[in-house]
Amino acid sequence: MAGRKSSNGEVAGPRNVVLEVSSAHRTQLLEVTPQVAKAVADSGVTSGICHLYVPHTTAGITVNENADPEVARDVEATLDRLVPRNAGYAHAEGNADSHVKSVLVGVSESIPIENGRLTLGAWQGIFFCEFDGPRRRKLRLRIISDPS
Amino acid sequence: MAGRKSSNGEVAGPRNVVLEVSSAHRTQLLEVTPQVAKAVADSGVTSGICHLYVPHTTAGITVNENADPEVARDVEATLDRLVPRNAGYAHAEGNADSHVKSVLVGVSESIPIENGRLTLGAWQGIFFCEFDGPRRRKLRLRIISDPS
Amino acid sequence: MAGRKSSNGEVAGPRNVVLEVSSAHRTQLLEVTPQVAKAVADSGVTSGICHLYVPHTTAGITVNENADPEVARDVEATLDRLVPRNAGYAHAEGNADSHVKSVLVGVSESIPIENGRLTLGAWQGIFFCEFDGPRRRKLRLRIISDPS
Repeated sequence: MAGRKSSNGEVAGPRNVVLEVSSAHRTQLLEVTPQVAKAVADSGVTSGICHLYVPHTTAGITVNENADPEVARDVEATLDRLVPRNAGYAHAEGNADSHVKSVLVGVSESIPIENGRLTLGAWQGIFFCEFDGPRRRKLRLRIISDPS
Repeated sequence: MAGRKSSNGEVAGPRNVVLEVSSAHRTQLLEVTPQVAKAVADSGVTSGICHLYVPHTTAGITVNENADPEVARDVEATLDRLVPRNAGYAHAEGNADSHVKSVLVGVSESIPIENGRLTLGAWQGIFFCEFDGPRRRKLRLRIISDPS
Repeated sequence: MAGRKSSNGEVAGPRNVVLEVSSAHRTQLLEVTPQVAKAVADSGVTSGICHLYVPHTTAGITVNENADPEVARDVEATLDRLVPRNAGYAHAEGNADSHVKSVLVGVSESIPIENGRLTLGAWQGIFFCEFDGPRRRKLRLRIISDPS
């Protein structure tokens, strides 16, 4: 995990990074693009894949529009409509809907890296998806070098 | 696919593994965490990614809570409510809903490996998702070594 | 990105490929299996992973049945039913539903490669998912070699 010299003589940073995310609402998409982009830059990896992993069962990860914040609000509202908080669930903790939302959105995502940068589309941002907040959460990054 | 000597002299096992899964119900989340964890341990890979792939069109793979089995039951019931078995589908085989559920849940998942183990969260388990059972199914594992 | 000699002396092609896809409808699953299979063959990679990435916020990628085209139509119709075009969204561009569908289906997918070929199941095809067409779109492929 310590810094190492890359082939061009620069010290490369760690390729396993754990980010911390804090939510303020029960259902909330939180943009983490700057933190992920910084981790990719710090890693020194110029070509490869950035793998994102959520080690929680009532949260997820997605990539979608970050230009208009209303889009994230519409995603939150639609998930709450499709999978309401109370719907006669068997799980007794009151967050069965949060688990289902996590399954629908997914807990991992992979984004290519080229020329040392994430190849996000023009309107894309990376969002940690909180479905049982407010909470403090972790997001695991693994930056894989694959010169091609 | 045969065993090979790893850098520390131990014989490492295969990194491509096909697991078999048997379902008992039409819609059923089946936990496969022990089998996947064993394949990772057998592979000898200490740092990397475990990639899971479902080669079927009416099944999926997800990661969610395995502590309370009611959570898996709530996921099954909610998917059956959102995408009912009969809803005027065009596909004539009677399992159009199973295909849609497969698209919503997804057929691949990737989990980081550190210190020779899957970095699953405290409450996370890996579930093969049957949407057109009962059946015998396959789950492909690919264990990728990426020392970082 | 230029061709290189692989270990067996053959010239291997590029491992980063951008495909172009054109949709004819607003919501449309477009099969891209032949183009992806060709890129894998051209890459010269015999064992590894093919990573697919959609750099758009109103589109997605999935793997499902390609034998009966009615299945793709049922997926389109069910997504349009679950997330209708007009439902009081906050986002003012008239395509909030397209963003939500992208989140539900996902923008990345990974498929193992063995013996130089995608390990797709017997009935599986790869579908670019248009949710705000008709449009011209891009699909990023990254072919990762991992001899195992």
